Amino acid sequence: MNILYKSEPERGRIWAALLAELAPEAVFRQWPDIGEAAEIDYLVAWQPPEDVSVFTGLKALFSVGAGAEQFDYAALPPDLPVVRMIEPGLTSGMVEYVTFAVLGLHREMPRYLQQQRNRRWLAHPAMPAAKRRVGVMGVGALGEAVLKPLVQLGFDCAGWSRTAKHIAGVASFAGAAQLGAFLARSDILICLLPLTAATEGILNAELFSQLPTGASLIQVGRGKQLNHQHLLNALDSGQLAAAVVDVTEPEPLPEDHPFWHHPALWLTPHIASQAQPESALRALLENIRRFERGEPMHGVVERERGY
Amino acid sequence: MNILYKSEPERGRIWAALLAELAPEAVFRQWPDIGEAAEIDYLVAWQPPEDVSVFTGLKALFSVGAGAEQFDYAALPPDLPVVRMIEPGLTSGMVEYVTFAVLGLHREMPRYLQQQRNRRWLAHPAMPAAKRRVGVMGVGALGEAVLKPLVQLGFDCAGWSRTAKHIAGVASFAGAAQLGAFLARSDILICLLPLTAATEGILNAELFSQLPTGASLIQVGRGKQLNHQHLLNALDSGQLAAAVVDVTEPEPLPEDHPFWHHPALWLTPHIASQAQPESALRALLENIRRFERGEPMHGVVERERGY
Repeated sequence: MNILYKSEPERGRIWAALLAELAPEAVFRQWPDIGEAAEIDYLVAWQPPEDVSVFTGLKALFSVGAGAEQFDYAALPPDLPVVRMIEPGLTSGMVEYVTFAVLGLHREMPRYLQQQRNRRWLAHPAMPAAKRRVGVMGVGALGEAVLKPLVQLGFDCAGWSRTAKHIAGVASFAGAAQLGAFLARSDILICLLPLTAATEGILNAELFSQLPTGASLIQVGRGKQLNHQHLLNALDSGQLAAAVVDVTEPEPLPEDHPFWHHPALWLTPHIASQAQPESALRALLENIRRFERGEPMHGVVERERGY
Repeated sequence: MNILYKSEPERGRIWAALLAELAPEAVFRQWPDIGEAAEIDYLVAWQPPEDVSVFTGLKALFSVGAGAEQFDYAALPPDLPVVRMIEPGLTSGMVEYVTFAVLGLHREMPRYLQQQRNRRWLAHPAMPAAKRRVGVMGVGALGEAVLKPLVQLGFDCAGWSRTAKHIAGVASFAGAAQLGAFLARSDILICLLPLTAATEGILNAELFSQLPTGASLIQVGRGKQLNHQHLLNALDSGQLAAAVVDVTEPEPLPEDHPFWHHPALWLTPHIASQAQPESALRALLENIRRFERGEPMHGVVERERGY
């Protein structure tokens, strides 16, 4: 198998070394060293080269990340399988980040850390987790994984997705018709949606107004889903109490952006979920082996729905 | 049964209303309305009245909190049972706080929030939970409860206690002889020890020097266990990377204390574990019923060991 890798050089070096152990028969090329273009079987990239038509033997395009919305599908052969990365390192990172953020918002940690800066020692009544309603928008592999520890910690959990998903201990809401009911019971809202035409700009004033007053937001989806000014307005009006934001548009934020210094907003630099080189490579190889045996791969993009 | 309550009036009012439902036969008195002192069976307090000898029929003294180190045992009848509060609300609050703090330190959140204040967008490599060694000092009811979700999140967990405790997925260290080995493998150290003569001042320079360089501390034990200046020195030298501190001596801290504004220290006002009035009252009643049936109560203090 011939693999062409076009992404961060550091991970490329780690992968080259690991691949020599795990699949010594594989040829691993790092962009721009493509060798004979016609010999490339698999392309692994965040952004593929502009002209993929030179790879006449290409069998599949793999995203190095959990998303595949960055590809220009019009420029890709219509029957080329495009595959998102689903790997345990990416998943456990997201589980850790979301569990941290939910517990932090549940226990009012942004407020306590703000009190620390103001030299104020003041306890606020705590609410049992069973009375805190947590809602996850986007119940795919990551959404299901983050719900598990939240259910175990005793939160009152719900999920909202395109089609209903049945997970033990989680109330299921589906489609546009049930979005309002889902939002009305989400004290802590987590956005894990893929970026599609339907989800671009979805985190806006209209959505925030449907949450309970004083709700909180965790944005770990994609930057283009969030209207920054609407979030700031909601925080300043008290409609939202706090927000934890890991993805923005653009990234990095410009230096004068209000997110840097808003007291009720925790900002992190797109680190919620970072693929671990070793487990990501193992997941890639497993998918290639499935493909070569004629079995379905994990994470194949359905182009018409966009993820 | 006659109960005399001497603690926060607000919880007293909630308890009085709840008790009328749960145990209508009970007489519930709130300090200073003691009625006939000789009729009091059970005293529930953080600090009992100075002279308890007037309660000639007293059967037990219950602490309203998880600790019982605040009592002056010399002033109490030597055979009076003294009981710490073990109740699910207290436990779940501690589980939430410690899980939050461990994940925050594991994912370098103090560093990221400091970067936010400095308008810096910079990701750092993440480490899998399986490679992060978490150590809990004090493996009683709370220690065991906090270890459970940490094991489930995949952390490499150990506990240190006076006598060895066997918990699935947790390495056990016991006694002074194994403290060094326990500390040497604790990237994130959690102090949940009771306050005794042996644990006063235990979190000091000598202990910090035995941790791996760049370790972190979560202090949820008792204020008198932590040497503040030694913690600041360890943070400033880099021996410790960060700390999350919920208890201090004194509380509140004075206005000019360095903990208020240290960038690598998160300070909260003794809120890790707050007893929930309803579950605490149920636990108290269950213990009284056990006592009246001649069964052992939960949380009876062994005076010679101090907890």
